[in-house]
Amino acid sequence: MASPDTQTSRQDCLALDEADPLAPRRQMFQLPPGVIYLDGNSLGALTHAAERRVQQTLRAEWGTDLIKSWNVHDWIELPARLGARIAPLVGAAPDEIIVCDSTSVNIFKIAAAAARARGERHRIVTERGNFPTDPYMLQGLAALVPGLELVCVERDQLKDAIDERTFLVVLTHVHYATAEMFDLAALTAQVQAKGARILWDLSHSVGAVPVDLAATGADFAVGCSYKYLNGGPGAPAFMYVRRSLQADLQPVLSGWLGHARPFDFIDEYVPAAGMTRHRCGTPPVLAFAALEGGLSAFEGVDMQVIRRKSEALSELFIELVESFGADFGAVLASPRSAAQRGSHVSFAHQDGYALMQQLISRGIIGDFRAPNLLRFGFTPLYLRYVDVWDAAQGLREELQRWRTVGPSAVVRQSVT
Amino acid sequence: MASPDTQTSRQDCLALDEADPLAPRRQMFQLPPGVIYLDGNSLGALTHAAERRVQQTLRAEWGTDLIKSWNVHDWIELPARLGARIAPLVGAAPDEIIVCDSTSVNIFKIAAAAARARGERHRIVTERGNFPTDPYMLQGLAALVPGLELVCVERDQLKDAIDERTFLVVLTHVHYATAEMFDLAALTAQVQAKGARILWDLSHSVGAVPVDLAATGADFAVGCSYKYLNGGPGAPAFMYVRRSLQADLQPVLSGWLGHARPFDFIDEYVPAAGMTRHRCGTPPVLAFAALEGGLSAFEGVDMQVIRRKSEALSELFIELVESFGADFGAVLASPRSAAQRGSHVSFAHQDGYALMQQLISRGIIGDFRAPNLLRFGFTPLYLRYVDVWDAAQGLREELQRWRTVGPSAVVRQSVT
Repeated sequence: MASPDTQTSRQDCLALDEADPLAPRRQMFQLPPGVIYLDGNSLGALTHAAERRVQQTLRAEWGTDLIKSWNVHDWIELPARLGARIAPLVGAAPDEIIVCDSTSVNIFKIAAAAARARGERHRIVTERGNFPTDPYMLQGLAALVPGLELVCVERDQLKDAIDERTFLVVLTHVHYATAEMFDLAALTAQVQAKGARILWDLSHSVGAVPVDLAATGADFAVGCSYKYLNGGPGAPAFMYVRRSLQADLQPVLSGWLGHARPFDFIDEYVPAAGMTRHRCGTPPVLAFAALEGGLSAFEGVDMQVIRRKSEALSELFIELVESFGADFGAVLASPRSAAQRGSHVSFAHQDGYALMQQLISRGIIGDFRAPNLLRFGFTPLYLRYVDVWDAAQGLREELQRWRTVGPSAVVRQSVT
Repeated sequence: MASPDTQTSRQDCLALDEADPLAPRRQMFQLPPGVIYLDGNSLGALTHAAERRVQQTLRAEWGTDLIKSWNVHDWIELPARLGARIAPLVGAAPDEIIVCDSTSVNIFKIAAAAARARGERHRIVTERGNFPTDPYMLQGLAALVPGLELVCVERDQLKDAIDERTFLVVLTHVHYATAEMFDLAALTAQVQAKGARILWDLSHSVGAVPVDLAATGADFAVGCSYKYLNGGPGAPAFMYVRRSLQADLQPVLSGWLGHARPFDFIDEYVPAAGMTRHRCGTPPVLAFAALEGGLSAFEGVDMQVIRRKSEALSELFIELVESFGADFGAVLASPRSAAQRGSHVSFAHQDGYALMQQLISRGIIGDFRAPNLLRFGFTPLYLRYVDVWDAAQGLREELQRWRTVGPSAVVRQSVT
């Protein structure tokens, strides 16, 4: 195997793995042999703990204790209990986060609750090109509530768009396609200076990029638990409301498990204290069990250590791919500065879709994002430096093949 | 063991079990030894198939195929696939139901979508004393949308409350506490005659009481899958929209997986065709896997056969308990006529809470509903006639003990 034309050798990578304080964490995961998994930013890998926890929930809890499990195994407190486990990863207090519903639904819940309390202001501002569920959910809200307006602008026009008509700004901290990262503290301050509130979507940050919600004074946040948190496919999402805002934020999706006394079964909704009021229906316990297992991989890990390795893996990948990529039309589509980038890296290529299919067929799993992005995610808990080296080498070989056989041949082969 | 003073003997029950066409289905469930489970109307029991399906999803799908599972194992179509499995149980066409979110959230989704298209009408009518998540979710919607009014009345005032100002009526087919059943066809016709639409909550019907949504022309329905459908704790709920209404019902909770082309990642929401538009976020795959297993217990079973056994078990229980209950202050709180009753039976008793704790401690598991109801659910797929006999006998013994030692002693013992 030819070495890429770069300074970092495969041998160097093996040495980096040897010295990596996170290296032992890889043993906590069930990774299929022969696969380099660079899509943990879309669906995190299965932990042994998640499998154990789900099996325990199936047999010893649901199967054996049946309905009693709501008390005996404290299922009823799963949303708060797992919220408290996620809190330290994003700089929140344990009682500022609950786990519930999906990210999409939680965006609606916060935006609708904020709309209910909006006063004279009538605008929600968000970014064009954001992960689309964010604007879609807000479009639905705006269509329902007369007078409510959604303003969707390019990133460089955000500052001008946020004004005294704005009650809420909804932004995603790390961009799903390019990994470009907002300055969370600066944007929060900007929005609040205009008298508006900000809702941060942390789906592509949590578990990979340190976030300090408390220090920045962020108002609201939501996030996904099936990416870097390894909660399992479609795992329940989380939502955060700054404690000082909790008492005045009345839920619109006011379900019985958000009631102050759900088992009184009275006709009038009375919101529970704190974050509990944002629960709606019964939590999907098996999905919570998997997330509980997944989160155990973060126990005792400092988010700064994760971030350092995330940066190192990403920088290594960029260094390696840029050493040959331009020759084959692969151009970095993520910020070059690590400080402005989350934990994934995208390269644009005219035949990105077909190339990614080829990579996947040889066990290098990233994903494709329209219109032309090869996207690679770097998960510090289970990815090795040598994996990054091998992935770059694989990409180099596929690009060479692409240039030799031509794009249409690559496409044909990727379909069969 | 003394026989209850009644015509049906334990021996008779053994004979009924012998002749029961559903008896073999019990083997599909993992039931703990020494337990008579009369709470399958709250949390259905674990099937072997659910356990197998979850384990397969964990290891062979998530663990091995990782992100590829969305296509390889068709995770992306789980909401439609499981909707099509539930459809025949409620008289719907396969493409009229999807599985998604919780019952609470689905109530909001349908009510909000109906509110968006309401025209001049501004009222939602529902019943006082309904399972509270239904009115709670509607209260939240009414608080958000100016001019929208929620009218919550007693059952006998419903007819008068539904008028030309009403755009939606929300009712639960089988009452969670008493099991009293609406005449679904008659109410649907009544509501539609006033030019309004009806949303049926089938949480306490589906899988126990035959429902024919097509024949009755019902507009909308939602329901729970963790009760009689045995989908597991907090399993995803379902929603139904009559096909002729689907094209005009625009979602308010418009998430990316309800988009016509979710992987184009465009900024503007364009609803998918049919029920797919009502998907929001990513489905919790492990929860779907358990539901998929649970539903297999319904394969090849006629809902009329289930209903006949449900009625027989309920009638037997009422017959047995009424042969002694009145002497101990236990009074039937469910309709006496099987035709007006779902698949659970409630008895009111002044010390209902303490008595239920005692029953549970001896392995007869029902539940308590405020203020004074002992509630017992009858699940034809895994409950035997002899279980009903033994449960009635256990209740008799506890009532006798209650009369002897007095209510406070029962309470004290139930706490320890």
